[in-house]
Amino acid sequence: MSVIMHTLHVDLGERSYPVYIGRDLLADGEVLARHLGGSEVAIVSNETVAPLYVAKVRGALGEGRRVTEIVLPDGEQYKTLHSLEHILERLLQERHSRSTTIIAVGGGVVGDVAGFAAACYQRGVGFIQVPTTLLAQVDSSVGGKTAVNHPLGKNMIGAFYQPRAVLIDIDSLHTLPARELSAGLAEVIKYGLICDPAFYAWLQEAMPRLLAREESALAEAIERSCSLKAAVVAADEREGGLRAILNLGHTFGHAIETAQGYGAWLHGEAVAVGMLLALRLSVARGWVDAAEIPVLEALLRQAQLPLEIPAGMTPEVFLDLMGRDKKVVDGCLRLVLLRGIGEACVVADATTAELDTLLQDAVARAKSRC
Amino acid sequence: MSVIMHTLHVDLGERSYPVYIGRDLLADGEVLARHLGGSEVAIVSNETVAPLYVAKVRGALGEGRRVTEIVLPDGEQYKTLHSLEHILERLLQERHSRSTTIIAVGGGVVGDVAGFAAACYQRGVGFIQVPTTLLAQVDSSVGGKTAVNHPLGKNMIGAFYQPRAVLIDIDSLHTLPARELSAGLAEVIKYGLICDPAFYAWLQEAMPRLLAREESALAEAIERSCSLKAAVVAADEREGGLRAILNLGHTFGHAIETAQGYGAWLHGEAVAVGMLLALRLSVARGWVDAAEIPVLEALLRQAQLPLEIPAGMTPEVFLDLMGRDKKVVDGCLRLVLLRGIGEACVVADATTAELDTLLQDAVARAKSRC
Repeated sequence: MSVIMHTLHVDLGERSYPVYIGRDLLADGEVLARHLGGSEVAIVSNETVAPLYVAKVRGALGEGRRVTEIVLPDGEQYKTLHSLEHILERLLQERHSRSTTIIAVGGGVVGDVAGFAAACYQRGVGFIQVPTTLLAQVDSSVGGKTAVNHPLGKNMIGAFYQPRAVLIDIDSLHTLPARELSAGLAEVIKYGLICDPAFYAWLQEAMPRLLAREESALAEAIERSCSLKAAVVAADEREGGLRAILNLGHTFGHAIETAQGYGAWLHGEAVAVGMLLALRLSVARGWVDAAEIPVLEALLRQAQLPLEIPAGMTPEVFLDLMGRDKKVVDGCLRLVLLRGIGEACVVADATTAELDTLLQDAVARAKSRC
Repeated sequence: MSVIMHTLHVDLGERSYPVYIGRDLLADGEVLARHLGGSEVAIVSNETVAPLYVAKVRGALGEGRRVTEIVLPDGEQYKTLHSLEHILERLLQERHSRSTTIIAVGGGVVGDVAGFAAACYQRGVGFIQVPTTLLAQVDSSVGGKTAVNHPLGKNMIGAFYQPRAVLIDIDSLHTLPARELSAGLAEVIKYGLICDPAFYAWLQEAMPRLLAREESALAEAIERSCSLKAAVVAADEREGGLRAILNLGHTFGHAIETAQGYGAWLHGEAVAVGMLLALRLSVARGWVDAAEIPVLEALLRQAQLPLEIPAGMTPEVFLDLMGRDKKVVDGCLRLVLLRGIGEACVVADATTAELDTLLQDAVARAKSRC
């Protein structure tokens, strides 16, 4: 029996949509049917998630619909143009028309690739996000960023394309591996750091319950995260300004992911280390009290997230990869830093010397902990 | 010395943009500069057009800009995901940031692929159309449809992505091969047929001057075509309804292009034959006087366009390929027909029997003229 615990709204004019948070939503055919454009549906998932949940979603769709299932391999290394092509080719082979709705059932990779496919197929078809990982539930499924990676940079090819609805089924977190749960918690912590000190304080207290997957704690964390994200996205859909604060830790994090090879580090793990680097830089600038560093370290450690950059990554590698980041505008690297806990800002004046000092220090610390 | 002869506006709210029609606009740095987002520019062209015009555009951009030139092979057969990838890879290699503007200098293929690249690169960068063929000037450069082809269907992968400006330089038509000029005239004739009987009558009188590339006649034909297109697009940007009338002849035409292999027939040639088929079907339904058939035949012949379907194409091949068309919605093939000259409508009730009769007749006529 499905239960909707919260309904949020992402307010984007004619592109507005609801985010439902609840239990057993995957099996709720009535909610799904509200957001389908026609009788044709394509469910995109991956090899790990498909056996767990696709039959359930398919069952919820009921009779009388033409449904194509498209299953990708599991992992960030498959978030590629090649996977995009595979989806598009299957849609063409099965003669899906423009009235098709693509339903993404899986984590951030599935949602990002399927969403980009929805944006491109016949110049745009309907799209519903059914995120089954914590990271996708609190971050990537809301806001309309879709993309694939390129060997020269993460998320470099994509579209802003809003879903018609997001269905967050908390029950799906019961099958999530611990490492993936932790990766999702990194993005949850991010919201506290960038714009909600009370939430940041709550997380320090609630972390054991979140790791124990207590339903009420998870629902609270997801609802707060999605509300904060929805507000930021509504104010700045295409990242003209404010939305960039959601990228706290991401410029460093993307460099780690790209250098290690997509899939070696989880996105949330790389973001955790990146947030700590951004906090250290903010402290070095005198913007945040140095006492906040051990607080964040303790929280990340509690969430079972890494604190140090990967062995072997030099400042040169970081600077080279960060120079390719989307946050570079007219030659200036833009970084998200903190003016205080809960107060993010975007700077374009980070000097190479400043970054080099930060990264040399990070290399030394990573070595000393090995 | 550049001269702006007409400035039209495509009215799409915050996505509105001007269409400039004039002489020597390619060399007008001031007009270009008005629509650049930053100091970074990528010019996308093809092997045929690049030697003629890219240096001119580059010169007009002046000093102090970082410019990357990307040259594709010439032809519809290169309107592929592969060409898209090539553009995106070059942009990444040259570290183009999100403030880059992509300028498409060429025909419809260059504009469609470069526009799709602009839509996808870092989820969207600035885009300026500089169409150098008549077909691109009167049709594909205005309205924001971008796409690449797939072996299973034409324009199946793409985006609605509006340019920031369209610069139509009539001088560039002096280097256009005669066959390409004729292909462009097919789309010009289309506007008369779907919504402007006076323009249709004018074309019958002006055709010799258009073929002789008389500047004033070309400027008039381009201005009328772009105005009609801008009005239709402003009323229905994403082809929810009205915009579909711009596809007169295109469902038949796409089947011809796909069956013959992209590039064998020019798009305008296939559309010419397709328009005649749509007119014949409209006559068969009793909606248009049969006397209009020889009128259109004479006009197409005068414009040096084909009248018959390619040898070897059977009704079965047509019906199979048309069934894959984007105009199929929930299993119904939608076709643009005429209620009269200058009055297009979209029908969803064409029967297989009706189409089979039309296409059998077309096969017989093609044979008898061989």
